[in-house]
Amino acid sequence: MYQHNGKTTDNLINEEAEITNTPNKREHDVLVSVGEQITIAKIAMCLEKLGYPAVSYTGWQVPIITDSIFGNSRIIDIDTTRIENDLKDKKIVIVAGFQGIDKNLNITTLGRGGSDTTAVALAVSLKADRCDIFTDVDGIYSSDPRIINNVTKIKTISYDEMLEMASLGAKVLHNRCVEIGKKYNLPIYVKSTFEKNSTGTLVSNFNNLEELKISGVTKQDDIIKITLTEENNTTSKIYQIFKLLADEDINVDNIVQNCDENLNKSISFTITKNNLTIALNILNSCKNKLNISEIKYLEKLSKVSIVGVGIANSPQIKADLFNILYKNNINIYMISTSEIKISVIIDENIADMALQTIHKFFIEK
Amino acid sequence: MYQHNGKTTDNLINEEAEITNTPNKREHDVLVSVGEQITIAKIAMCLEKLGYPAVSYTGWQVPIITDSIFGNSRIIDIDTTRIENDLKDKKIVIVAGFQGIDKNLNITTLGRGGSDTTAVALAVSLKADRCDIFTDVDGIYSSDPRIINNVTKIKTISYDEMLEMASLGAKVLHNRCVEIGKKYNLPIYVKSTFEKNSTGTLVSNFNNLEELKISGVTKQDDIIKITLTEENNTTSKIYQIFKLLADEDINVDNIVQNCDENLNKSISFTITKNNLTIALNILNSCKNKLNISEIKYLEKLSKVSIVGVGIANSPQIKADLFNILYKNNINIYMISTSEIKISVIIDENIADMALQTIHKFFIEK
Repeated sequence: MYQHNGKTTDNLINEEAEITNTPNKREHDVLVSVGEQITIAKIAMCLEKLGYPAVSYTGWQVPIITDSIFGNSRIIDIDTTRIENDLKDKKIVIVAGFQGIDKNLNITTLGRGGSDTTAVALAVSLKADRCDIFTDVDGIYSSDPRIINNVTKIKTISYDEMLEMASLGAKVLHNRCVEIGKKYNLPIYVKSTFEKNSTGTLVSNFNNLEELKISGVTKQDDIIKITLTEENNTTSKIYQIFKLLADEDINVDNIVQNCDENLNKSISFTITKNNLTIALNILNSCKNKLNISEIKYLEKLSKVSIVGVGIANSPQIKADLFNILYKNNINIYMISTSEIKISVIIDENIADMALQTIHKFFIEK
Repeated sequence: MYQHNGKTTDNLINEEAEITNTPNKREHDVLVSVGEQITIAKIAMCLEKLGYPAVSYTGWQVPIITDSIFGNSRIIDIDTTRIENDLKDKKIVIVAGFQGIDKNLNITTLGRGGSDTTAVALAVSLKADRCDIFTDVDGIYSSDPRIINNVTKIKTISYDEMLEMASLGAKVLHNRCVEIGKKYNLPIYVKSTFEKNSTGTLVSNFNNLEELKISGVTKQDDIIKITLTEENNTTSKIYQIFKLLADEDINVDNIVQNCDENLNKSISFTITKNNLTIALNILNSCKNKLNISEIKYLEKLSKVSIVGVGIANSPQIKADLFNILYKNNINIYMISTSEIKISVIIDENIADMALQTIHKFFIEK
């Protein structure tokens, strides 16, 4: 009965690309916000058809107040008066995700993961007990089921672990909504739209760092390692590069400073492949100014990570991980660790094998 | 470069019909208002691409305040502050037609002809000198070019004539926008989007009723003549039927009271074919109550009309019209006249011939 509208936004973006490659950002948001507007009206109609009184609201109708960064706005405040009145009247309220309104009454959109962010922000504003996110999978899994046969569904996971999982390539919940959940301590259930008795995964405030638990193993492809060598005997200006990259919204990861046998100082970091061209442009344009003598980069790398509480305090887990990689002849280019994850940068062509081996050892054991 | 979006609304209405045949009217407006929202964003992008600063506004962003009759709202007020500020900043302002916002911040749509209505209402609110409506034809013609070979473009036409032309089946400007133009004496130019030097038709305040001018000849098909006979010797209640039909939004035209050779009283009126089923239901359900002894109807009729200033005061025009019809063996079922038009109800299968004959005599002479 209800026709899903997921492709509307994609179609609009394609039509936009026929007009211009550099759309006005305000107009872009006017355009792409209609997909959700279509969806909320249709859902309300479906519910009414089934006998449930329902009412839809666009972002501006709620209103969901955001800043004015078109295409990537952040929610500032949500006025829940209208919604609460409707709920008192026993109506089902359907709010358009992904969109808001700035203080000048312009339409804004929240960018990637925006609909989840709307849902969690709304739940917080309504002082809800929890927020259920219905998606196309039945929760969060210990790894990518396209690569790993015996993935395990994670029943409960902490906000921090979920943040690591998301940033490390698990595509279920976007970081922004998890951050809001964490900040306001709002439990988030990730459930399947298509399974009637979906138990899903509960993302919540599990702070028991004494527990030792590997929740997931993730992989992220298309990693590039860039190495910059500094000219000898100069005042070190090389760190200014991170400001320049950040200005272009290029996310830099896994920064390592090296000093080779000849005492040449160098610095390595990783970026993702989609940012390579613009990053190289920036690096070349400021090469002289920052006393960089050499720019090298290594492509076709992957980041494989284990995520779980207690990792930081467990030398055994680290030892096990490096032992497995060593026994399987997997060369490690870079390592980074946090309280709840260990990531290694390895060759892309053996990354699936590495993921399978690590998952087998830590999760399937 | 710019892909026209005229079919978006039709597609949405088709998708809606897959959900329900009785959509919630508020949600219907949320849904169908997105077509214009897509269009305004794209037009703004196109203009920017061409180097012209532009800004788009939805109905609620202006805001265009309407009443709350979803699907057929009327404009109450337009706040032009934002638009005037943009115009001062030398920006091209693109406003979504057909839509508004009610006092409870619900999205409304204006119904048929809504975009023209928005344009003229906006021109009035901005105290513009005139409003140019760009459409797919180069103005208003003396008759339907699909039937008449030698149609003449009308250079100037009065509001009243235009209103008659529109109500009699000429599909160019919707009555509501002409009514606003008339009320505020705002000249409206109808021009072609596709012809660079389109001179179009000027609809304005031409009040010289002394002038004798036939502007156009129109035809409207799918007319039904309904005849109700009253029971003898009863108190006449039959006129109550018009209230009942009006309550269902059925437009009744050409009302004639008859009295046959046997002194049976009857009343005839016309409706359009799309209203026949519901009209018959109403008539049958109140037949006894209103002392109606018989309900008859005649299908496949057309209304052919001549429109022009001075008709009311010219017996010659009326004589010419009836003479032409008589000479061509065209049987007239009903006649109605106003200051600026004469309409005759005739058989549909000879209506094209009648239109051609009348157009030839009055316009091509």
